[in-house]
Amino acid sequence: MKVVIVGAVAAGMSAATRLRRLDESAQIVVLEAGDHVSFANCGLPYYVGGVIEERSALLLQTPQSLHARFDLDVRVRSRVIDVDPADRTVTVLTADGEQYLEDYDHLILSPGARPIVPDVPGAERALVLRDVADVDRMAAATADARTAVVIGAGFVGLEVAENLRHRGIDVTVVELAPQVLGALDPEMAVRVQDRLVRNGVRVITSAQVTAIGEATADVAGPTGTQTVPADLVVASIGVTPDSTLAAAAGADLGPRGAILVDEDMRTSVPGIYAVGDAAAKRDAFGDGPTLIPLANLANRHGRRVADVIAGMPGRGRPSIGTAVVGVFGLTAAVTGRTERRLRAEGRDYRAIHSHPMDHAGYYPGATQMTLKLLVDPSTDAILGAQGVGEAGVDKRIDIIATAIAGGITASELADLELAYAPAYGSAKDPINMLGYVAENAAAGTTPSVQWHELASAGDEAPVVLDVRTAAEHARGTVVPPWGDAPVNIAVDDLRERHGELPRDRRIVVHCQVGQRGHTATRLLRQLGYDAANLDGGYLTWRDGIRTLEQAAASAV
Amino acid sequence: MKVVIVGAVAAGMSAATRLRRLDESAQIVVLEAGDHVSFANCGLPYYVGGVIEERSALLLQTPQSLHARFDLDVRVRSRVIDVDPADRTVTVLTADGEQYLEDYDHLILSPGARPIVPDVPGAERALVLRDVADVDRMAAATADARTAVVIGAGFVGLEVAENLRHRGIDVTVVELAPQVLGALDPEMAVRVQDRLVRNGVRVITSAQVTAIGEATADVAGPTGTQTVPADLVVASIGVTPDSTLAAAAGADLGPRGAILVDEDMRTSVPGIYAVGDAAAKRDAFGDGPTLIPLANLANRHGRRVADVIAGMPGRGRPSIGTAVVGVFGLTAAVTGRTERRLRAEGRDYRAIHSHPMDHAGYYPGATQMTLKLLVDPSTDAILGAQGVGEAGVDKRIDIIATAIAGGITASELADLELAYAPAYGSAKDPINMLGYVAENAAAGTTPSVQWHELASAGDEAPVVLDVRTAAEHARGTVVPPWGDAPVNIAVDDLRERHGELPRDRRIVVHCQVGQRGHTATRLLRQLGYDAANLDGGYLTWRDGIRTLEQAAASAV
Repeated sequence: MKVVIVGAVAAGMSAATRLRRLDESAQIVVLEAGDHVSFANCGLPYYVGGVIEERSALLLQTPQSLHARFDLDVRVRSRVIDVDPADRTVTVLTADGEQYLEDYDHLILSPGARPIVPDVPGAERALVLRDVADVDRMAAATADARTAVVIGAGFVGLEVAENLRHRGIDVTVVELAPQVLGALDPEMAVRVQDRLVRNGVRVITSAQVTAIGEATADVAGPTGTQTVPADLVVASIGVTPDSTLAAAAGADLGPRGAILVDEDMRTSVPGIYAVGDAAAKRDAFGDGPTLIPLANLANRHGRRVADVIAGMPGRGRPSIGTAVVGVFGLTAAVTGRTERRLRAEGRDYRAIHSHPMDHAGYYPGATQMTLKLLVDPSTDAILGAQGVGEAGVDKRIDIIATAIAGGITASELADLELAYAPAYGSAKDPINMLGYVAENAAAGTTPSVQWHELASAGDEAPVVLDVRTAAEHARGTVVPPWGDAPVNIAVDDLRERHGELPRDRRIVVHCQVGQRGHTATRLLRQLGYDAANLDGGYLTWRDGIRTLEQAAASAV
Repeated sequence: MKVVIVGAVAAGMSAATRLRRLDESAQIVVLEAGDHVSFANCGLPYYVGGVIEERSALLLQTPQSLHARFDLDVRVRSRVIDVDPADRTVTVLTADGEQYLEDYDHLILSPGARPIVPDVPGAERALVLRDVADVDRMAAATADARTAVVIGAGFVGLEVAENLRHRGIDVTVVELAPQVLGALDPEMAVRVQDRLVRNGVRVITSAQVTAIGEATADVAGPTGTQTVPADLVVASIGVTPDSTLAAAAGADLGPRGAILVDEDMRTSVPGIYAVGDAAAKRDAFGDGPTLIPLANLANRHGRRVADVIAGMPGRGRPSIGTAVVGVFGLTAAVTGRTERRLRAEGRDYRAIHSHPMDHAGYYPGATQMTLKLLVDPSTDAILGAQGVGEAGVDKRIDIIATAIAGGITASELADLELAYAPAYGSAKDPINMLGYVAENAAAGTTPSVQWHELASAGDEAPVVLDVRTAAEHARGTVVPPWGDAPVNIAVDDLRERHGELPRDRRIVVHCQVGQRGHTATRLLRQLGYDAANLDGGYLTWRDGIRTLEQAAASAV
């Protein structure tokens, strides 16, 4: 059996090594267009910033080391330019300009995804960050650069922005959307934007780079165009599946050009498989294929395709999509669907926000995080979660990703037995608390209102009741846009003073994070008031309102 | 409806506040024998050590605050000394010596568990750590103490030992078992013992305190008795359910005197419920009741009993048991069953050890942890897990606890989509890697051998093959006790040199952590050798062997 693999990073290399462990006799040829194999893709931005000091740390394997350990025939600077699926051959173009045919029994395509470069004048000056050659170029460019524009505020864009700051460069991030980090909902991402700004990164949202000059970039926003200094321009507006070869072979393509595969990673062409960022994933939350260019799935699917070719019993799984990014010490993580996407899909959902401490408040060093949970109101299934905070965020998102995989419902998060000591969590962990809130929502115990439902007056504007203390109220409170004065009765006084509230109007209760509001809402409802709790309290409302302000302020 | 709750910490208070939120009209009386309510139980050791500086940080609520917010009638210094289940009354003894009857419709027992004090001469001098009065006594005693003996090396004992060291006290920990932290298996706990010793704690295992003198403790071990200086003696050998009252009421008791309850927390006596450390839990891994005195379950069950009394639809869940402890910066965590317990129960299991980095090795600050997974070989169900390391251990154990709750099998851990960026994990997270190993074990791809199977020669002693480099081999290797010289062929040379190995003997392959060993085992098996991989590699073998040495060395 002869297996040819196109692409020697993540998925391709996982496939090659797994296949060798399963089949010592297989002939395995790996063809890589670039100079390097199996390099630390996700480490590239950190080498630019000097966080990873040694370039050699990025280079995990060489063709020689892979030959010694796994008897792989790895050929770098060998670009596959054509496939003949009928003859089962590929045409290889070497760096020397030579061409040759290589035959195969099984062909695994793992070409990855190409960074998208905006189609604007001067675009040839925009650097991208896909491979070791790219990182060498960018590292060299940082030596002389004093200013930089990063186009795109996604995961990679933010990592690059932070690392350029580490090099002392003045960085402007330009993002087409009204928010940074579109993988998160705006009221979550707003804290990431704050963190960027506090660390000297200029953020311009709802804007795009229209031209790149010699040391500048023109940025056009809703209110006009400005020229921003840019010794260095980095394009990180996303990636596009490198599916040219698959298309040439006649394979069916799916969303944004991703190669369509079945659950065994087979393309529509016999004998050809696809894995990694170029391949479409099965969507765990919908029927169709989806694009999730993440390293964890690439490695997983690389292993899987080796199992399939070796005839091992398999289990294809739909993909959830889980990701994390660190931004100047702040962690932002996400799994599954966002609210934005659920809304775009026209799906019914329930959103829950919370602001728990990462560990017991009475133990030193506790910090507050923000969590968001998205729930299918008809089945109580978890559809997604997001977290932003100083510590413990990746843990909570991983727990929820695992819960989704295990079919644990939102309410059942209440029952999870998580490791508790005061330095690590709380006896009621943030995850358990999300479950409690979800349970109360599902049972109708405490109806809730979202921040954006208070952003504009409805037909019947409710009374907004702040149940925090007078001191907290004075420091800032939810201001109903319909002109009512905010009402403040502390939760501990509510049994005595509830008579001050009108019985003929809806009451939206809020506290700081939603917990006292829940207690107050329960009290008022039992006393016959039509009360609901502002989900996530003042903090979520404020974050939500600030997304609107920030989008306005940062637009040029 | 009138509900009387005995005990105003964790479970009792969760029940009271939840019940109020569900039923504004209920009369709720909480009777607490001590001076304080709802204090930070798990924070007590850290106040002793000064990690938590303010005593007030431990006191989360007062009877007044609970009355204001939840309309609770909380009475401290009020001990319930009798129950009449027929009349539905309890007899309350106040600190002033007065007695009165209090009637109830529902009685919730949440009395907690009492620290066990060893029955030895001088035992009255032993301090325990259950409540605020205890912590005041211990904090006062640390002022003058220069030496201390901590009896018992469980979670609380180790927390106390560390915190006494923070106070500059010379600490000796005396443990009856041959290892510290009996909640973990010995080859995992050995690293905790190392950490204690490196931080100046003397550890004596397989020993007990036989007498407590004025400033000493007599310690008897297998080889004799010694007198250890002990200005301070702390008993932390475990707790016993405080079930006197339940017994007086005629409630059925279970393991170690725990109050038996059904899944709705009902005791065998109508109208009486029990929650918290005094109540038995339903065992997720067996049929019978079990004792799991942990704060997370106490809070959970307190909430649950309120739901039951308020008539909310419920879901009783069996308990897994998940716990964590920090010991001088090292984290040790566990969920589910240990190997020791599975063996004691005569159950079939498979053990898997790994030593992954907490995040990508190429990103600064990565540290190595040790993980252990226990699997039901017939169903692939996860039976338990343990972790010890500098960082990321609580996250991994929480993920596995969630996987157990969701019915995710050991092999399916391979597919979990966990948040990856190089500062947070690996593209193949330690959890995924456990899944890979489990999958290979389940499929028979790579048979494995446990460290203790190499501790003594079997009938057919295998060849032990070290596939690490010669340099690694020279630094320390697995030495077969049957006198064979260890064989060293680096994995990268094995294709060329395998002919040096005998074909008529079993070969146990090992590397440092098990990964290269897996590759080498696969190669050898495909070449026709009877090869198996040493699970967890040299590191697990060394840890295992050291448990034997340490037990011998620390015994007096």
